[in-house]
Amino acid sequence: MKVAVILSGCGVFDGSEIHEAVCTLLNLSKQGVEYQCFAPNKKQSKVINHLTREVEENEQRNILVEAARIARGNIKDLRDFNTIDFDAVIFPGGSGAINNLCDYGSKGANCRIDSDISKIISDCYECKMPIGAICIAPVLLAFVLGKYGITLTIGSNEQVIKAIEQTGAKHKKCSADNAVTDNKNLIVTTPAYMLATSIKETDAGISKLVSELIRLGREQNLS
Amino acid sequence: MKVAVILSGCGVFDGSEIHEAVCTLLNLSKQGVEYQCFAPNKKQSKVINHLTREVEENEQRNILVEAARIARGNIKDLRDFNTIDFDAVIFPGGSGAINNLCDYGSKGANCRIDSDISKIISDCYECKMPIGAICIAPVLLAFVLGKYGITLTIGSNEQVIKAIEQTGAKHKKCSADNAVTDNKNLIVTTPAYMLATSIKETDAGISKLVSELIRLGREQNLS
Repeated sequence: MKVAVILSGCGVFDGSEIHEAVCTLLNLSKQGVEYQCFAPNKKQSKVINHLTREVEENEQRNILVEAARIARGNIKDLRDFNTIDFDAVIFPGGSGAINNLCDYGSKGANCRIDSDISKIISDCYECKMPIGAICIAPVLLAFVLGKYGITLTIGSNEQVIKAIEQTGAKHKKCSADNAVTDNKNLIVTTPAYMLATSIKETDAGISKLVSELIRLGREQNLS
Repeated sequence: MKVAVILSGCGVFDGSEIHEAVCTLLNLSKQGVEYQCFAPNKKQSKVINHLTREVEENEQRNILVEAARIARGNIKDLRDFNTIDFDAVIFPGGSGAINNLCDYGSKGANCRIDSDISKIISDCYECKMPIGAICIAPVLLAFVLGKYGITLTIGSNEQVIKAIEQTGAKHKKCSADNAVTDNKNLIVTTPAYMLATSIKETDAGISKLVSELIRLGREQNLS
């Protein structure tokens, strides 16, 4: 099996949440699955100083170049992603998921998903490839696939839950150390740092997400 | 128990190796130990584009501000580190360990250790606080504590092994999924990405390093 991991930068406040991204790679490696990281080759929506949490108004960074830090340089431009090469896809969380891969962070319920991301999610769904999404990243799935009544978990923030339910998606509560599987639609989600108070909990939830994705992927390969 | 984790930026080629840093925090969390991250509040020696691996000549980044990405903002200036607050200290690897915390990366055997880092290592050694170092970071321990004949592991690069042995330190071979403990000098080291070919191996070695440091710390607290 081979899984694509789609990153959105490097850092919880303006890119991929680093613990979630690394725990994703670690659990794939521990469960014997190959992975390939991807990220969009375009400008980040903003750069945040992670010490002061202030916007660096005069700084620009590229999503792919920064995500390469998490991938130790082994990363590809999202334009080179092809569903045929993979058995599943995972979107780690972090502010980059809602500010670089879509504009939910600034537009809320009126958000638009990046066209490449939207196409990948639709293509995976149509060819029955399991999709995992962590933390806030299930927002991406809701705005593309909500019309199919998919079931997701996304923490306990009422505003976020309302926004994803307005797309037609159903929200299911889940603790940080667990994951929610939509067996019909082949979607697995875990709250991670939407709820987790430690990296241990985040890792436990992602471990379950990865094992569920592998199970769904094997079932698809057999059917 | 509480452990200080000393970071050197965010990214294998110019800062802390991200997988090693995150696996350190994860294993501390899983083994029930509190942690606090620290980094020097000064300019990185260089910024490397992690996609092209080229030096970004016109860019400057601050070690503490970038390391804050790995720590999710929960990080302190290294100047605020005090041995009395901790039971052990860990240095993850990455190019930052030998370019931001010392200049081994450019000067080799003639390297000088950052004065704050050198003082912390000496202070920990003198007050019998266990020290862990991952990947290339044992270089820091060799150049400060080599005169005491400490035992370290640092992978298989002959030039690096020769450089640390010239300080008086002894090198011991070790696989990526294991760690070397110097019980007399309270030092634990693991090769991580000096040898590892997967994040799973890196995590296994760091898991052993963390459990050995906890054991040494408990023995010190009892004695």
